[in-house]
Amino acid sequence: MPRIYLDNAATTRIYDDIASEMFAAAKEYYGNPASAHSEGARAAELIARSRRMVAECLNCGEDEIFFTSGGTESDNWALYAMARASGKDRAAVSVLEHAAVIRSAERHFAKTDLIPCGADRRVSAAEVERALCKDTGAVSVMLANNETGDIQPVSDIARVCRKKGVYFHTDAVQAAGHIPLDVKKLGADMISASAHKFHGPKGVGFLYVRRGTALEPFILGGAQQNGMRAGTENCVSAYGLALALSRSVKELAETSARVAALRAEAERRILQIEGAHIVSAGVERLPGILCVCFEGVQGESLAMLLDLVGIAVSSGPACHSSDGAPSRVLTAMGIGSELARGELRISISGYNTREEISAAADAVAAAVQKSRGIKA
Amino acid sequence: MPRIYLDNAATTRIYDDIASEMFAAAKEYYGNPASAHSEGARAAELIARSRRMVAECLNCGEDEIFFTSGGTESDNWALYAMARASGKDRAAVSVLEHAAVIRSAERHFAKTDLIPCGADRRVSAAEVERALCKDTGAVSVMLANNETGDIQPVSDIARVCRKKGVYFHTDAVQAAGHIPLDVKKLGADMISASAHKFHGPKGVGFLYVRRGTALEPFILGGAQQNGMRAGTENCVSAYGLALALSRSVKELAETSARVAALRAEAERRILQIEGAHIVSAGVERLPGILCVCFEGVQGESLAMLLDLVGIAVSSGPACHSSDGAPSRVLTAMGIGSELARGELRISISGYNTREEISAAADAVAAAVQKSRGIKA
Repeated sequence: MPRIYLDNAATTRIYDDIASEMFAAAKEYYGNPASAHSEGARAAELIARSRRMVAECLNCGEDEIFFTSGGTESDNWALYAMARASGKDRAAVSVLEHAAVIRSAERHFAKTDLIPCGADRRVSAAEVERALCKDTGAVSVMLANNETGDIQPVSDIARVCRKKGVYFHTDAVQAAGHIPLDVKKLGADMISASAHKFHGPKGVGFLYVRRGTALEPFILGGAQQNGMRAGTENCVSAYGLALALSRSVKELAETSARVAALRAEAERRILQIEGAHIVSAGVERLPGILCVCFEGVQGESLAMLLDLVGIAVSSGPACHSSDGAPSRVLTAMGIGSELARGELRISISGYNTREEISAAADAVAAAVQKSRGIKA
Repeated sequence: MPRIYLDNAATTRIYDDIASEMFAAAKEYYGNPASAHSEGARAAELIARSRRMVAECLNCGEDEIFFTSGGTESDNWALYAMARASGKDRAAVSVLEHAAVIRSAERHFAKTDLIPCGADRRVSAAEVERALCKDTGAVSVMLANNETGDIQPVSDIARVCRKKGVYFHTDAVQAAGHIPLDVKKLGADMISASAHKFHGPKGVGFLYVRRGTALEPFILGGAQQNGMRAGTENCVSAYGLALALSRSVKELAETSARVAALRAEAERRILQIEGAHIVSAGVERLPGILCVCFEGVQGESLAMLLDLVGIAVSSGPACHSSDGAPSRVLTAMGIGSELARGELRISISGYNTREEISAAADAVAAAVQKSRGIKA
């Protein structure tokens, strides 16, 4: 039986035809985009075209898009840039943020305040406002969480930050390509994204920076990307990112309806298992993430058992795999650490089928039973 | 007539079969290397294999290789890490360094001392020693220059730095894959390299860090790469880098003999043009770079005229294209700014042929004549 891949929140399979297009582009656009000759100009045109495509997906200007090596670099850059531009000592970031945001805030600001989330797992604009003090230079609250898929009220938070004159960044790594992203509606000063989360290549992402926002380069060297991100531009990957984002956005309505139906089916089936608590429920959330905690089970063992029968899921975010501790995010959401240890994240993409979901639900039920049996 | 690409110091064409292998790998190894399941494990194994291949090329341990988004990030990281590890205020970097090194030194150290080169365009170990003072925490001198190809006495410099207890980094972006790189012989604490300079993909490079060297991550977030470089690992590009480096190293003797012969022929022909001064001569240098200055000509116009007749060369490094000023590196080498403005860099790879060199030499002669005619 072929394997069933249900860990699309960790990374997605690259769209087949985009891999082909990148392959063709790698051979054809081999010039250095910074070179003055035709080979360089053609590569530069590929970058420019890619930037236009991304800008169109986000409803922003081409000059507001900077390509990076991925979401992590984008997050690092955003926090660094906000620290320099604000000249202030404190950052306020939500307790749900990815380590790339929290650790960058801690490095670039003298003090990092953690903004709590409510019982509904949402970081409210009111809570953000409470966290601000006169020394706060920057706020970062993610658009959608990578463990539960919960969507945060980013436009409201942006309004508060604007009112208070504080820079606002949102990490949209998990959201981009999965829900509509309109920078005018979101209102953030900076937005991070990563291609491999929406069926693009790994090793490339972007940072949106609203026109007029003070910006300093994080990676220094040559004058690439308007002097803001040094290093020979990776035109082929930028093109892959742009193709994948355009396609994801174009098919978004259709894909998310299909994916949400698959998740609903998975949820329905999983709820039949005794002691299953669906975490991702209630609030607005990404269509593809189903986060569940099972009583009396270790999520890690569960994921391992499922892997053995050909199903790839995770017991939390990939970048924290195997550290044993319960998810920092889930406990911040108010889930007890015992139950949080039983976390299983099933994340669905447009490549998944009803048959796969059905087989996976059976396998999860069997694995939970087996796991409890071993323990008992 | 097909175009003739002679700007291989700016970037190289990816090896055709490596583009194919990467394409296949992108479809096959789509897991997140940090995920615990089989898809993740396979991607992690691809990264591990790539790291072993690179380590073998450099005669170092796998644990000493960290993949980055390219040479520029590697340089930024090295300077940052040396600043943190040394806890000292001053860096000493050669006047020939790439902007990625100079600007990073200026950001991460309070004071950056520029080490001059001699009349032979070499940065001697004695000159490095003279530049050191008790506050110097780090030295960076490139292995081979990107404009002239001159190879610097890096092992001697490494010895001086070791003796003085100062960290030493060498930017080998232009050298890797073109001359043998044995970290034991070079003796540097850190070495930067970039895949697209040796027929690998853009957007990926590595930083070698000698075992036991204090290291801090530059890009923060997840625990990837032993906690030293956060961000989902770009296994496909790392694999492309490893394949390209292995192949370049394996064919190095054969390729460099062939390339050096092509350069000798180009040099012989160019010297017949009146007022041509070969810059890249005398000292040990990379086989493929021919740097020449023509009297009474603007290198930029020359490169443009050549582009129009199908020949891609450059009037200096790509990342500084079109800023109008004469090359900072050439003037630091003692070439008058008037003559330096007439710079033309012809850089040859294993893909070039004798016929191409001959056609290019004819075209250069015609372009110089035409350019002087326009001016007169």
